Amino acid sequence: MKVQGRPMRTIWLEPDGQAVGIIDQTRLPHAFVTARLGTLEEAAHAIRAMRVRGAPLIGATAAYGVWLALREDASDAALARAREVLGATRPTAVNLHWALEQMRQLLEPLPVSERPSAAKQRAAELCDEDVAINRAMGGHGLKLLEAAWERKGRQGRLEVLTHCNAGWLATVDWGTALSPIYLAHDAGLPVHVWVDETRPRNQGAGLTAWELGQHGVPHTVIADNVGGHLMQHGQVDLCLVGTDRTTAHGDVANKIGTYLKALAAKDNGVPFYVALPSPTIDWSLRDGVREIPIEQRDGTELSDVTGRLASGEVATVRVTPEGSASANYAFDVTPARLVTALITERGVCPATEEGLRSLFPERAGRAS
Amino acid sequence: MKVQGRPMRTIWLEPDGQAVGIIDQTRLPHAFVTARLGTLEEAAHAIRAMRVRGAPLIGATAAYGVWLALREDASDAALARAREVLGATRPTAVNLHWALEQMRQLLEPLPVSERPSAAKQRAAELCDEDVAINRAMGGHGLKLLEAAWERKGRQGRLEVLTHCNAGWLATVDWGTALSPIYLAHDAGLPVHVWVDETRPRNQGAGLTAWELGQHGVPHTVIADNVGGHLMQHGQVDLCLVGTDRTTAHGDVANKIGTYLKALAAKDNGVPFYVALPSPTIDWSLRDGVREIPIEQRDGTELSDVTGRLASGEVATVRVTPEGSASANYAFDVTPARLVTALITERGVCPATEEGLRSLFPERAGRAS
Repeated sequence: MKVQGRPMRTIWLEPDGQAVGIIDQTRLPHAFVTARLGTLEEAAHAIRAMRVRGAPLIGATAAYGVWLALREDASDAALARAREVLGATRPTAVNLHWALEQMRQLLEPLPVSERPSAAKQRAAELCDEDVAINRAMGGHGLKLLEAAWERKGRQGRLEVLTHCNAGWLATVDWGTALSPIYLAHDAGLPVHVWVDETRPRNQGAGLTAWELGQHGVPHTVIADNVGGHLMQHGQVDLCLVGTDRTTAHGDVANKIGTYLKALAAKDNGVPFYVALPSPTIDWSLRDGVREIPIEQRDGTELSDVTGRLASGEVATVRVTPEGSASANYAFDVTPARLVTALITERGVCPATEEGLRSLFPERAGRAS
Repeated sequence: MKVQGRPMRTIWLEPDGQAVGIIDQTRLPHAFVTARLGTLEEAAHAIRAMRVRGAPLIGATAAYGVWLALREDASDAALARAREVLGATRPTAVNLHWALEQMRQLLEPLPVSERPSAAKQRAAELCDEDVAINRAMGGHGLKLLEAAWERKGRQGRLEVLTHCNAGWLATVDWGTALSPIYLAHDAGLPVHVWVDETRPRNQGAGLTAWELGQHGVPHTVIADNVGGHLMQHGQVDLCLVGTDRTTAHGDVANKIGTYLKALAAKDNGVPFYVALPSPTIDWSLRDGVREIPIEQRDGTELSDVTGRLASGEVATVRVTPEGSASANYAFDVTPARLVTALITERGVCPATEEGLRSLFPERAGRAS
């Protein structure tokens, strides 16, 4: 997508071919800053500190991280260590492990001397594959948006609510949940996005609002508390979110608070769609609430808020009183029963084991 | 309750008897500052700017505002104007109109010369009545907390989730939802409170955490997004919130986001209690979602966050990108079907027309 009119991806090979470039997403929306990752440690830190975030982009960064490690030492031990370091950065996103497993399967059988260049090439391919997957999801999701627009009698605006950032910043390009929205906007549908602020890290207020604004998509930022009220009053035509891990039965782990919006959607008859590239599916899990590990992050992410002072300077302020503890659970699980449909790169299916297997028959039986 | 060990109310007659004192709640938790209200306009501004907030405290401030107006001019026209100015400050809290109506009924029949002193005395009485009501609610609510503690086998902590601030800062003293919690804590129950941050104005992070901390009640601040996850994982024994307006059928208007927590409570079998002094009941309304007006406030309350810099200085930072709009709905309505029970000063009842009428038989028929 575009930044100040210039097409960009969120991750790229630097022009000298010696490092990986990223957008430092911790600086958005207040400053647009890119960063250069030259080592395994820098890649791992970028994931852990959420300079890159979003399940697909975490996977892509991890793949490049393997290359950066093997460039220094391509032994079996170094490969194992790279997978261990990168695998430990974030516990919930399954793409991370999927990408590391892709790299292992390719690299382990190769002679040590061939591994660095193969890793570099495969990481680049994974990035291109992510872009193709997201574009395909966008096409399938677009049909759902068009159908909603028809159901609404093509009146007013098509009102979509989203939570967190499942846009191009969360992927290599296009995004997952926002991919259909970009396509709809470009196709002339009058789409308007209610952007959940997404506390505590404000990915909605900071990232989704920023990327929608860069692309010119009409949007309004709301507190995470507001969506239920809007749905009660017919101001949301559909919800569309991403996911960090989806079980073989269709349970969806996504940014904390997603579950509350899914409950409100169900209570008000609003369709609740989840867009997911297939690497986000964890075919080994069934019951998401019981089985998906939920990351707990530092409480200061809640108590300390970063933004721009009137002077333009970026500053951090503490909002809680001295002595009050904060807890910070990063994800929750939305049970499949609350999900209207899953949007994948192969099409749309019910959030059920049968639904997912119908689109991915080659995985049939793997989850049993 | 206590501030730095010293017992206080949230509103008082100043020692010289010529003005009303308040805690400026817009400065909490970063600074404890009191303010003096000497005119109708200052009282109205304090309510509008949320220097005082919380339905019961808004009512008390409005009552004193009538006195401040009549002190200058006690004519029928001045009384009408005072009611108009104060009545227009906040649209959702019904206590405001209840308090103004109490003052009108008392003052209109009196000779003009007697009105100022009568208004002053009645405002003070309304404050005392609020304290008594809240203490009584606390006693009834305490029994629910004790029952939950027994059900839990008296193991671990009694985990209560609350939203916004329905503590003593929202009332004259004791609070509504927090009144039972203070009594439980003082009685030795190991109560721990999950405090919803309560975006956009952070009344949970700023006010509830502050007043619980001042009283020594264990608590943890969480993002508004977190409660559903905690309930899915058995980490909440009950929810307890206040309300700004309750219909005769038990629908509850409270701070935006309350509805989402009530949905999660229902989905996970967690009791959801609402504490309300009877002046919060709007006997003229039935369907809260359709009939209760929901205040929209300025979007900058969402986009601009105030807190303490590392230097200790209080500053405001903008979290949204330039050019992104924000919407700010202040309340939502939780349908009675999601409310386990209502806690009033006369006891606990189901959130139904029959339940409310059983406690307030003198109002029977008024809502039909």
